[in-house]
Amino acid sequence: MVKARKYVVKKIFEGLPKLEDFEIVEYELPVLKNGEILVKVEWVSVDPYMRAYNIRYPVPYDQFGYQVGVVEESKDPRYPVGTRVVSHKGWCDYVIIDTSDPDPVAGELYKLPDLKGYSDSFGIGAVGMPGATAYFGFLELCQPKAGETVVVTGAAGAVGSLVGQIAKIKGCKVIGFAGSDDKVKWLEEIGFDKAINYKNADAAAALKEAAPNGIDCFFDNVGGELSSDIMYQMNEFGRVAICGCISAYNIDRSKLPKATIVQLAILGKQLKVEGFHLWRWKSKIPEAYEQMIKWIKSGELKPLEQISKGFENVFDAFVGMLNGENFGKAVVKL
Amino acid sequence: MVKARKYVVKKIFEGLPKLEDFEIVEYELPVLKNGEILVKVEWVSVDPYMRAYNIRYPVPYDQFGYQVGVVEESKDPRYPVGTRVVSHKGWCDYVIIDTSDPDPVAGELYKLPDLKGYSDSFGIGAVGMPGATAYFGFLELCQPKAGETVVVTGAAGAVGSLVGQIAKIKGCKVIGFAGSDDKVKWLEEIGFDKAINYKNADAAAALKEAAPNGIDCFFDNVGGELSSDIMYQMNEFGRVAICGCISAYNIDRSKLPKATIVQLAILGKQLKVEGFHLWRWKSKIPEAYEQMIKWIKSGELKPLEQISKGFENVFDAFVGMLNGENFGKAVVKL
Repeated sequence: MVKARKYVVKKIFEGLPKLEDFEIVEYELPVLKNGEILVKVEWVSVDPYMRAYNIRYPVPYDQFGYQVGVVEESKDPRYPVGTRVVSHKGWCDYVIIDTSDPDPVAGELYKLPDLKGYSDSFGIGAVGMPGATAYFGFLELCQPKAGETVVVTGAAGAVGSLVGQIAKIKGCKVIGFAGSDDKVKWLEEIGFDKAINYKNADAAAALKEAAPNGIDCFFDNVGGELSSDIMYQMNEFGRVAICGCISAYNIDRSKLPKATIVQLAILGKQLKVEGFHLWRWKSKIPEAYEQMIKWIKSGELKPLEQISKGFENVFDAFVGMLNGENFGKAVVKL
Repeated sequence: MVKARKYVVKKIFEGLPKLEDFEIVEYELPVLKNGEILVKVEWVSVDPYMRAYNIRYPVPYDQFGYQVGVVEESKDPRYPVGTRVVSHKGWCDYVIIDTSDPDPVAGELYKLPDLKGYSDSFGIGAVGMPGATAYFGFLELCQPKAGETVVVTGAAGAVGSLVGQIAKIKGCKVIGFAGSDDKVKWLEEIGFDKAINYKNADAAAALKEAAPNGIDCFFDNVGGELSSDIMYQMNEFGRVAICGCISAYNIDRSKLPKATIVQLAILGKQLKVEGFHLWRWKSKIPEAYEQMIKWIKSGELKPLEQISKGFENVFDAFVGMLNGENFGKAVVKL
């Protein structure tokens, strides 16, 4: 018998999630049935949408999320023992997966793409959901052209740091907003033309100086007043992709924050503003993975990971990420 | 010698425009040169963008705007005496137009379309700029499908009242927001499935009741908190066309109002929100005029006009329109 552990969400989060909102449940895994595989989890992802989606599900629920694991026992010949798989089975150390039962959010599990020798954790980062999110969200919705000016908020995050680098590859000028001087330094090291610490700058004035000719593309992970400031500096026919709204996830939905209206900016400059979830491009995702690996191999894209260790530290990694402590992709090695 | 009068804007408006912000200038028109026509103005339009565009131009400037007039003297054989023309020469009673000198906003003057016996004033209304704005803004950006639910704010205005009727022609369910009980009554008479007086209703609750299955298309003329309320009731992949933001025109640009952030609505439901100016469809505008006349003739579309009379009453008509006193298109008969 294999003993497994998993994080179960017991309560609807209020503000920042608390350790007491979770319960770590230890249980014995049943015997494998046909079509099932037993996976030993090696890498677990913590992402902002885990906070945002909390209100969608009745509690208690098993904490979902991407993970990379290795098949330890198999009753599906497509996934022999030793195969590495990516699934959305979340924060657990062992798990049985019915390979014919797709996840309601993420769809079917899949084999870890060939990462050409890079860390398997890239499969939940630059060559996983965050990578595909950056790739499609930015390229499809912002339609960047060489020479244009791109602004990214949450620029030091998993998705933002990739978007900025993709924008550089496409020949754009890139300005990033992040929440500490160390992040600003790192972003300028990996190629951002300018990074701004929104916590100690007049964001609108700093942006005006950094982008005197206005902004063509805006990839927003944050929302709120910063997002308004940026939209009022956009050029005619500018494109805005709304990928996240981390400034509001921790707020009671019925008491959403107020910020300077954006409608007059959208009207005045004929902006196109689109929100998106990755799943709309589901069938094309392998294309993103292939391109991301190429860019990593060529050295044009440098994914950074913030690695925590140990099953018991997944919660801390999650809250740290929500507090903006991570540089790049926050992952946990079990 | 012909004496002419025109409204000149002397001051940047603060809040609602004041009569003292204008000067009525009387002057003698010069002798016509080749390529010029002398137009006696018959109909003058007052529209919200005249307030909004005020900050774009250094004062003093002649008040621009659409007008219908008749050629009284001509040195351009394309426009013989008696021809009715539509131009953007604004609030004046006589004007000389250089036919080869396009208006910076509205482009070249053009002959009044064949209105099949309807009032010439339709040329600055349902078969003019407001009509084309409703037609393209709604059909191109909202992409309505039969059976979908459409919400229009500023529904009793020149553009909004046409959008709602076009939506009905396209088989949609239409809900309009307006600012008085009389307007609500009128909107339901011309075919809106439901109209709501936002001044004495809980807009979000009334909308929830009127559109229990959510909203697919939103044509916004107003902005502000009402716009936020509506966006949070939209369905997956909903489309929002931002045509106006009349709740903010009268506010000092540096002190724009705040409202509940819309980014989380845009993200959560993958909305597409676009601002537009009619000019992007410039080459296709005659198509809109042709269709609008057909719908008017068939009785499917009933344009209503709020007609003021006399050159000296143009200012009052303008402020009345900004205050929301008009039912349908506000025009002035000289």
